Amino acid sequence: MTLTIGVDIGGSSVEAAARDLAGEIVGRHRIRLTMDGGPQVAKAAVSAVRELGIDDFGAVGIGVPGQVHQRDGAVSLAVNLGIGSVPFDLVGPIEAEFERPVVIENDVRVAALGAWETFARAGRGVESVAVVSVGTGISAGVVVDGVVLRGARGMAGEIGHVVVDENGPVCGCSQRGCLEAVAAGPAIGRVWPRGDRPEAASALFAAVDAGDAAAETVARRITGHLTKALIWMAATHDPEVFVLAGGVPSVGDVFLRMMREQISQRAATSELAARRLSPEQVVLADPNDPPGPRGAALLAARTILQERAELPAAPIANNQ
Amino acid sequence: MTLTIGVDIGGSSVEAAARDLAGEIVGRHRIRLTMDGGPQVAKAAVSAVRELGIDDFGAVGIGVPGQVHQRDGAVSLAVNLGIGSVPFDLVGPIEAEFERPVVIENDVRVAALGAWETFARAGRGVESVAVVSVGTGISAGVVVDGVVLRGARGMAGEIGHVVVDENGPVCGCSQRGCLEAVAAGPAIGRVWPRGDRPEAASALFAAVDAGDAAAETVARRITGHLTKALIWMAATHDPEVFVLAGGVPSVGDVFLRMMREQISQRAATSELAARRLSPEQVVLADPNDPPGPRGAALLAARTILQERAELPAAPIANNQ
Repeated sequence: MTLTIGVDIGGSSVEAAARDLAGEIVGRHRIRLTMDGGPQVAKAAVSAVRELGIDDFGAVGIGVPGQVHQRDGAVSLAVNLGIGSVPFDLVGPIEAEFERPVVIENDVRVAALGAWETFARAGRGVESVAVVSVGTGISAGVVVDGVVLRGARGMAGEIGHVVVDENGPVCGCSQRGCLEAVAAGPAIGRVWPRGDRPEAASALFAAVDAGDAAAETVARRITGHLTKALIWMAATHDPEVFVLAGGVPSVGDVFLRMMREQISQRAATSELAARRLSPEQVVLADPNDPPGPRGAALLAARTILQERAELPAAPIANNQ
Repeated sequence: MTLTIGVDIGGSSVEAAARDLAGEIVGRHRIRLTMDGGPQVAKAAVSAVRELGIDDFGAVGIGVPGQVHQRDGAVSLAVNLGIGSVPFDLVGPIEAEFERPVVIENDVRVAALGAWETFARAGRGVESVAVVSVGTGISAGVVVDGVVLRGARGMAGEIGHVVVDENGPVCGCSQRGCLEAVAAGPAIGRVWPRGDRPEAASALFAAVDAGDAAAETVARRITGHLTKALIWMAATHDPEVFVLAGGVPSVGDVFLRMMREQISQRAATSELAARRLSPEQVVLADPNDPPGPRGAALLAARTILQERAELPAAPIANNQ
């Protein structure tokens, strides 16, 4: 059966996975490295695919942070990868290497696609999924009936720079009190500087777990801001499930419990608020079935299915 | 050519329009009345269609406020129509009257569909449209590539009860500082009680236009809250155009100018904010081509096209 490869590119690691057309993940490989600039990112993606050790595949899907220009196969504004406002052609070098179709999409959007498939495969198909990623930055991806929502300019889900605290700290984008400026990883490092910055969220929520009252106060404020964003997404998109992904949610159960407490508290004040967003709708991404590489591989699979469907002699169903 | 009828039901009037399958509106009729309860709403819809004076039509589409249960053809929580939490079967009596298919959808969602078609017909096709309706209540409808987004529980766009001012007045839903509690028509009537309540928005923005400084302050606060909602919708949906509809935006140019000023002020603080939402993206609904009845008639047209497409012998394209 034809395989496709999904590659999930992050600031400090690249994960590749091979998926068969039935949705089974048949291989995964992760490499850790710090990337600086487009050419290095392309090289890292190629290495991750090579080291997966699978040669016979039909297409590659790439999930990458930043603004994705699908027509040009390029990405811009992926600051953590050292890619700035000039779009870098990421598809070109990878396509040249493997001589197979390569498609790219924003990393959180492919994660939403992957999460959507994970639910479907678990026999719990959902109408829609929102993935909210909280790491160095904050953004969201929404999939409805298997279709990724991109928005008119590819900016749907870019919730990190909405102001949630008008008296909050000045953000890198020069607004004050953006969601990212008060709730992303670096913001946690600033208000809970006990531990190395990348580990700030772990340190904070471990302290909460150990009963530290100061940590509890800080964590409540952070999860409260994130809950505001979830409420707006519930009001605008009404997704069936929210999947929390990225470095901050990966601290695990304490984070999830606090998010659910925040949602419960608001639900307790109003029947309408309770109907809009319930604690049970919010889950953590499954670390054993990471949504990013799965979604990227599914995107690649759709590309080749579509290509086959376009050949008049090949009546293969296109389930897109 | 087959016609369909669209009926837009509001708290104080019902407007019916006939649309041919090419998208031309060939007749419109509006009746004013106060409705109290489901049976009266159904009767008013029937009257509006009858008084339109067109007998040969294929289906009827109804846009109605509240929560729409499409499978049952019922509506609930349309408080201004006197329909409470018990769903009222609105489709049944209208279908019985005309013996033709009747479909219903939330009024703001059909308005988004109508606005989307208006742009397409003007030769300015847009990828997506968000209609934000500000009247007795506040809600939004989003159409992407001609498809109405409903959400997992039909609550997509129910933005009226998101808290935008934690110190604001207590809302009917028992939260504090909901968008509706600070920016809908009744809220304007409370902070600008010079004039009859339904006319409060007109009175307020007329005073702004006349240079009244107190009115300017109040109107800035209200348009500022509405702008927050537009920013969240831009961040979550990224629609190409926002169409402002309903009683408050119908006051016209002064309202639009103030909304655009609010957006410009935020855009001036940050390049990112400017890229996300620009003043030019925001327009008023066209009073000469009301989006509600047009969208309802288009919904009805899709229903009959779909029915024909389902007959194996009738290869009519379904553009849904």
